[in-house]
Amino acid sequence: MKNIAILLSGRGSNFEAIAKSVATGRIPNANIVIVISNKPEAAGLEIARRLRLKTLVIPSKGKERADHDREVVKALQDHNVDLVCLAGYMRLLSPWFVQQFPRRILNVHPSLLPAFPGLEAQEQAFAYGVKVAGCTVHFVDEELDHGPIIVQRAVSVGDDDDEQTLADRILEQEHIAYTEAINIVLEGKYEIVGRRMVTRG
Amino acid sequence: MKNIAILLSGRGSNFEAIAKSVATGRIPNANIVIVISNKPEAAGLEIARRLRLKTLVIPSKGKERADHDREVVKALQDHNVDLVCLAGYMRLLSPWFVQQFPRRILNVHPSLLPAFPGLEAQEQAFAYGVKVAGCTVHFVDEELDHGPIIVQRAVSVGDDDDEQTLADRILEQEHIAYTEAINIVLEGKYEIVGRRMVTRG
Repeated sequence: MKNIAILLSGRGSNFEAIAKSVATGRIPNANIVIVISNKPEAAGLEIARRLRLKTLVIPSKGKERADHDREVVKALQDHNVDLVCLAGYMRLLSPWFVQQFPRRILNVHPSLLPAFPGLEAQEQAFAYGVKVAGCTVHFVDEELDHGPIIVQRAVSVGDDDDEQTLADRILEQEHIAYTEAINIVLEGKYEIVGRRMVTRG
Repeated sequence: MKNIAILLSGRGSNFEAIAKSVATGRIPNANIVIVISNKPEAAGLEIARRLRLKTLVIPSKGKERADHDREVVKALQDHNVDLVCLAGYMRLLSPWFVQQFPRRILNVHPSLLPAFPGLEAQEQAFAYGVKVAGCTVHFVDEELDHGPIIVQRAVSVGDDDDEQTLADRILEQEHIAYTEAINIVLEGKYEIVGRRMVTRG
């Protein structure tokens, strides 16, 4: 069995989708062993408790980044975590943090990276007028929204879309993409060539 | 009937696709009235002659940009051109040129803009490791690969792809996208909101 940890700061809709995939066997041979929030009020904690998952609040407020990172890394190590999944975790991980879990930290971003990194990617894409939007699941590296891409899924932008309908449709694809990406990484049937991730049969 | 002009510098595979769409009625009520190259040796000129289309060479080499632009604009005006389609035209149009044909100049770019502007976009995308690539047909404005987007089409990147197979599949989609975009613009059933192009029913 592989041990998955979730890091979140808010409701963590992608966390809920991952939990569902684990529960229904779409992510086989894996458990969510810990759900960590840097914010005590994160709605995702309540969802985790409802799902009878172990939760941990490690507040980041007023704490040095290095200290907070050390606490989170220790908690992850204590739970023998194989894979760390960010689900709306509103903190940039320090290089040291990333290095403790090489190719073991995933993030989902609501755009077809490298287009529209950063906050409010769906709004950025809508305002730019793209006709194809989407989402990206990628390995986390030392730079924001930057590591090797595992899965991307495209979403067509229609004339009737507004920012919210587009964001909603992207979110549906994020849920599918995250499950796909977790399976690829947990099965280990991939290699990284340059910065391309290529799956092996 | 609407008058289309083609500007090219090389073989102009997108020009050939547009010509086919015009000939088969997929672009109805339009003619290609002139094919202009800035290079005498452009292979697209030979294709144009084979298709019995009028060709014109306006060499850019050793000429001031302003002088060359003036010659090209004059030729376009002499042919009562309604729409200018760039097809591998390796020159940046001056702001003055663009202003002579507001919302009447189209370009196709082999990436999902704003990702990977500039040269060798397919190679850039392949090296970056994207899983969704594509192409964009957009209005030309004063900035490179920048104007409002008319059509985008996505192309999945597979594990077996190399730069060439990916570029080939993107090119197929460019041909389809360009015809779609020309029809939208010639029919005039669109509006630009901010920088979003929205088609009207």
